[in-house]
Amino acid sequence: MEYRVLPEIAKLGHVAVVSTDLEKSLWFFKEVVGLEETEEVDGVHYLRAWGDFEHHTLSLTAGDESRVEHIAFRTKRPEDVGYFAELLEEAEVKVEKVPAGVEAGQGESIRFQLPTGHNFELYFEMDQTPADPSRKARLKNQTYKAWRKGISPRRFDHVNIATNEDANLIIDFLVEKLGFKVREYFKLPNGATGSAWLSVTPLVHDIAVMSSPDVKSSHELHHISYFTDNAQDILRAADILTEEGFKFIGPGKHGITQAIYLYIIDPGSGIRLELFSNSYLILEPDWKPVEWSIEEAEFAVTYWGEQTGGASELDKPTINAGGEMSIKI
Amino acid sequence: MEYRVLPEIAKLGHVAVVSTDLEKSLWFFKEVVGLEETEEVDGVHYLRAWGDFEHHTLSLTAGDESRVEHIAFRTKRPEDVGYFAELLEEAEVKVEKVPAGVEAGQGESIRFQLPTGHNFELYFEMDQTPADPSRKARLKNQTYKAWRKGISPRRFDHVNIATNEDANLIIDFLVEKLGFKVREYFKLPNGATGSAWLSVTPLVHDIAVMSSPDVKSSHELHHISYFTDNAQDILRAADILTEEGFKFIGPGKHGITQAIYLYIIDPGSGIRLELFSNSYLILEPDWKPVEWSIEEAEFAVTYWGEQTGGASELDKPTINAGGEMSIKI
Amino acid sequence: MEYRVLPEIAKLGHVAVVSTDLEKSLWFFKEVVGLEETEEVDGVHYLRAWGDFEHHTLSLTAGDESRVEHIAFRTKRPEDVGYFAELLEEAEVKVEKVPAGVEAGQGESIRFQLPTGHNFELYFEMDQTPADPSRKARLKNQTYKAWRKGISPRRFDHVNIATNEDANLIIDFLVEKLGFKVREYFKLPNGATGSAWLSVTPLVHDIAVMSSPDVKSSHELHHISYFTDNAQDILRAADILTEEGFKFIGPGKHGITQAIYLYIIDPGSGIRLELFSNSYLILEPDWKPVEWSIEEAEFAVTYWGEQTGGASELDKPTINAGGEMSIKI
Amino acid sequence: MEYRVLPEIAKLGHVAVVSTDLEKSLWFFKEVVGLEETEEVDGVHYLRAWGDFEHHTLSLTAGDESRVEHIAFRTKRPEDVGYFAELLEEAEVKVEKVPAGVEAGQGESIRFQLPTGHNFELYFEMDQTPADPSRKARLKNQTYKAWRKGISPRRFDHVNIATNEDANLIIDFLVEKLGFKVREYFKLPNGATGSAWLSVTPLVHDIAVMSSPDVKSSHELHHISYFTDNAQDILRAADILTEEGFKFIGPGKHGITQAIYLYIIDPGSGIRLELFSNSYLILEPDWKPVEWSIEEAEFAVTYWGEQTGGASELDKPTINAGGEMSIKI
Repeated sequence: MEYRVLPEIAKLGHVAVVSTDLEKSLWFFKEVVGLEETEEVDGVHYLRAWGDFEHHTLSLTAGDESRVEHIAFRTKRPEDVGYFAELLEEAEVKVEKVPAGVEAGQGESIRFQLPTGHNFELYFEMDQTPADPSRKARLKNQTYKAWRKGISPRRFDHVNIATNEDANLIIDFLVEKLGFKVREYFKLPNGATGSAWLSVTPLVHDIAVMSSPDVKSSHELHHISYFTDNAQDILRAADILTEEGFKFIGPGKHGITQAIYLYIIDPGSGIRLELFSNSYLILEPDWKPVEWSIEEAEFAVTYWGEQTGGASELDKPTINAGGEMSIKI
Repeated sequence: MEYRVLPEIAKLGHVAVVSTDLEKSLWFFKEVVGLEETEEVDGVHYLRAWGDFEHHTLSLTAGDESRVEHIAFRTKRPEDVGYFAELLEEAEVKVEKVPAGVEAGQGESIRFQLPTGHNFELYFEMDQTPADPSRKARLKNQTYKAWRKGISPRRFDHVNIATNEDANLIIDFLVEKLGFKVREYFKLPNGATGSAWLSVTPLVHDIAVMSSPDVKSSHELHHISYFTDNAQDILRAADILTEEGFKFIGPGKHGITQAIYLYIIDPGSGIRLELFSNSYLILEPDWKPVEWSIEEAEFAVTYWGEQTGGASELDKPTINAGGEMSIKI
Repeated sequence: MEYRVLPEIAKLGHVAVVSTDLEKSLWFFKEVVGLEETEEVDGVHYLRAWGDFEHHTLSLTAGDESRVEHIAFRTKRPEDVGYFAELLEEAEVKVEKVPAGVEAGQGESIRFQLPTGHNFELYFEMDQTPADPSRKARLKNQTYKAWRKGISPRRFDHVNIATNEDANLIIDFLVEKLGFKVREYFKLPNGATGSAWLSVTPLVHDIAVMSSPDVKSSHELHHISYFTDNAQDILRAADILTEEGFKFIGPGKHGITQAIYLYIIDPGSGIRLELFSNSYLILEPDWKPVEWSIEEAEFAVTYWGEQTGGASELDKPTINAGGEMSIKI
Repeated sequence: MEYRVLPEIAKLGHVAVVSTDLEKSLWFFKEVVGLEETEEVDGVHYLRAWGDFEHHTLSLTAGDESRVEHIAFRTKRPEDVGYFAELLEEAEVKVEKVPAGVEAGQGESIRFQLPTGHNFELYFEMDQTPADPSRKARLKNQTYKAWRKGISPRRFDHVNIATNEDANLIIDFLVEKLGFKVREYFKLPNGATGSAWLSVTPLVHDIAVMSSPDVKSSHELHHISYFTDNAQDILRAADILTEEGFKFIGPGKHGITQAIYLYIIDPGSGIRLELFSNSYLILEPDWKPVEWSIEEAEFAVTYWGEQTGGASELDKPTINAGGEMSIKI
């Protein structure tokens, strides 16, 4: 009896962001949001939340154009990175191999583009760098002391990507090539899937996909998201942000995901951040994707609270999440 | 290329409780805790929380002795029930096959005992019975409206079992036969594992195992646990319970699991219930179990708040979770 | 040196509401909001929150037109009711004397109209009726057990009245005749006071006054408000209301008062209810009213969250709070 | 008919603390608790919470013995300070007059001792010093931005004093000489009042009085207290304190006052601090003091949660709050 398994993705890992105003982005993510900096290597600042276990969940570097350089997922097993490379190449997806150490803390990885041009990365090896002693939690199961500054979310939660092409180009790829499961989705009047929330974990989504002809390109990032333990933390975040002079959308509660939310733009890079709490877990192995019609959209998107998805200026910007990848074979 | 996979457990399913005072247990779990009753079949009351998706997560029936009839886990795939039966029988574990329908809502299952005599059940098929219209949530991803009565936790979370024998009899079985991973544990001065928190899901534990010579038998249940979305819900629970005249332990926060807790005894059956919130998720595929020494026990068990694990009368009772199983082959 | 003690108001007491759909109003206030009914006398239902100490803080009765029959304040001393009557009559305000018992639980009172026609009542004697034993709190300083049903706010907080005439007609009357202090206010470009928040207690406001040419008459009620202990209770309220099919405004946080808010319309009477939490206390005896310019209005009204004061349908309705008083001399 | 206005106390003002380890006390109150420093004058550090409106609510200075130098209350009117001086001297209480400016920010005041030797101060004039621009709230009704560091309570709440003499020596003085009202109290088996909670404001207590033969002297301080807006803030405080290595009592909920609490000792001065949330307001002018018997003490003191009032080491220390006053006539 011989076993052979398909490669699997374990979780969302991190997002690599290029900012036209790095100093402001660092102030925003470190002082206002309250992320911790693991280290700075060659101009790249590696950040994470106090409850994140990996070396980083967000990297920030300076550049001429604000963009997402790549969105990275961690595989379940070391060998899965190579297996994914094989499977993707068999499917005629161009795969770049990135040597260990190119990204601080990270082992060998592969990078490739979704059919829409979104840049993805898969890796397994990643340092679980301990916090430096002055910031290290007394709790052995927690990386940093919480509540040291700013909003202080617990951990990285999900990404939301957008395209002006057919969402199914992305959804099908995520499901068929990468093993994601659709958890909730909008069904368009023509029967096709509009937006979808997908995950490999019991989180309702590790990644969401939205499409609209109004999106700036085929490969945009709508937002990244960090999670707080309690809904009230989102209200505290609203106080902190308002006192710093920020405008934002929320707080509110999504029908889809059941999450308490607040959306805010990093004034350095223009990247949108969702602060996210509560939500629910899908532990059922035979979960039937929850289908929402367009008629239900208002309820599904904004169960209550300040509306997102509307005409607000704050609701418009997305960030290029594709284009040329920095590492070539 | 042929694939064959090992059977896997997806999640904790339910606990079947026998109560010497069924009426009082029903009052406690339905009116005070606020669980919903899916249906009553042949004297068995099938309950679940508003955010549980399966037919039931707790069943209550009358009996001469309060005990846990079985603790049930759901497999990942339908065929896993049979595969587990084969593997267990190969390992000389006696397995009972329970026909569909013996337990309301449930398909074929198997039952067997841990080496300590704890009664376990594995199943895959389970109705995801919708709530009746008057209680059904408008949210399509939620079973019942929340907050209809009592404490109103979201979902079933975990079980904690106890033995007066070596904890490793259980831990090894859970790991080797059932695929659980140890997430946190106490290391005894002799190098052996004392208590352990294990899961197949990203929850820190679906099941915990405690051992002490003081435990009444080799196969006891220490507690079952339901989860609330917010820490403040535990404070609200404390108000509700105190007004109903209950004594309880907590609120407090565990170091292990990082959960906000409150322990309360069902006055009907004597079963202990933990109300549980916050905690953290383990999404890393290569999680290194967090080791705690006995010297760290106070901090690990009671990070802050009213101590559990102490000499309180409330902290003593456990419930027989083994003995003869009701269904014979 | 001669001293003269002026009569004083101690607190807001209650609001008497006439509803065109009494049954629906009772369902709303008792089942959804979770107020308790002290008793029903001659078709008038006397309600209060679990932490209210007086016989009632809201009365509901059926009528052809939904309106506020009167807004009642409690005086500091028994004799103040008569002193206020004298002072008001000296100022040529017509005063009606209402015998004890006309309103259940209440002693002798006086009723009169503000210059805008709003109906006010002053009383001192009021039963502090205990809850019936099944609902009575074990806490000796609390009337009912909390959290029995619905949103379950702690206590009555304030009223907000509106006029299409000059707000100063009301503000001056409240300050000069009734001893209220302005706590926060909008200064109009012409130097006059627009809206104002006034109190006799350390609450930022027991009563607020708004004026706009768009208000339906000179004597309208904008909303009544009940207080919850924690901001998170407002989020819980939002869940409960959404599941019952309600639309509402909020949650948000006012700059003025610093309160977390949610506005909802009673579907029976059309009266607007504000659920209100946090806020701040003014204990300083020499408080300088906080002045806000019209340019600051957006920030002052909606510090964050879903906007009120806007064009929403929900934000429009007010209820007649004047007209003929029911009790004649 | 002749009226005579008695002088009145408006509120608790501040506590002046001498610490044997000033540096540690400053670290504790500024970095851990998160109080702001208004200024330092002649070695006295003047602190307040972000929502306090006066120049200071706590002062810290170095000394050979940790003690409370005085507890200060603000009068309702400027002339009340002098009137109180007259009344106290008529009652043969020795009164010291303290010139303006001796205490930074403060006008003329009087100091005197309770019959037990507790040092009290009365003042009216106090600067409402604005925060410096970098810390000033955008909210015009709030002094500082909240949540800048540490626990970050909103405002000073109350003091609790202890004596080894008859509590009624203090209670009678507070009621008869200073106009306090008893809100809740313990009735001893002999019919006398044991502990009492008293206020001049609608807070359940501005000051509490406890007596026991075990108290170190006739004039001790049991604790001072700062208020947080939400119960969950107390849980967040527990996390912050535990990570800093502190032991504390709580969280719990008092029956008396209905407050969520946590008690922690300043490691510099040994002064005990209560973090306090929720509670209730007494707006009724004819409040009947809530009487508790000694049999009810456990329930009255610890409605739920980790017990205070017990044998814990943490529960023992009190600080001398009397002795020679620093300012002589």
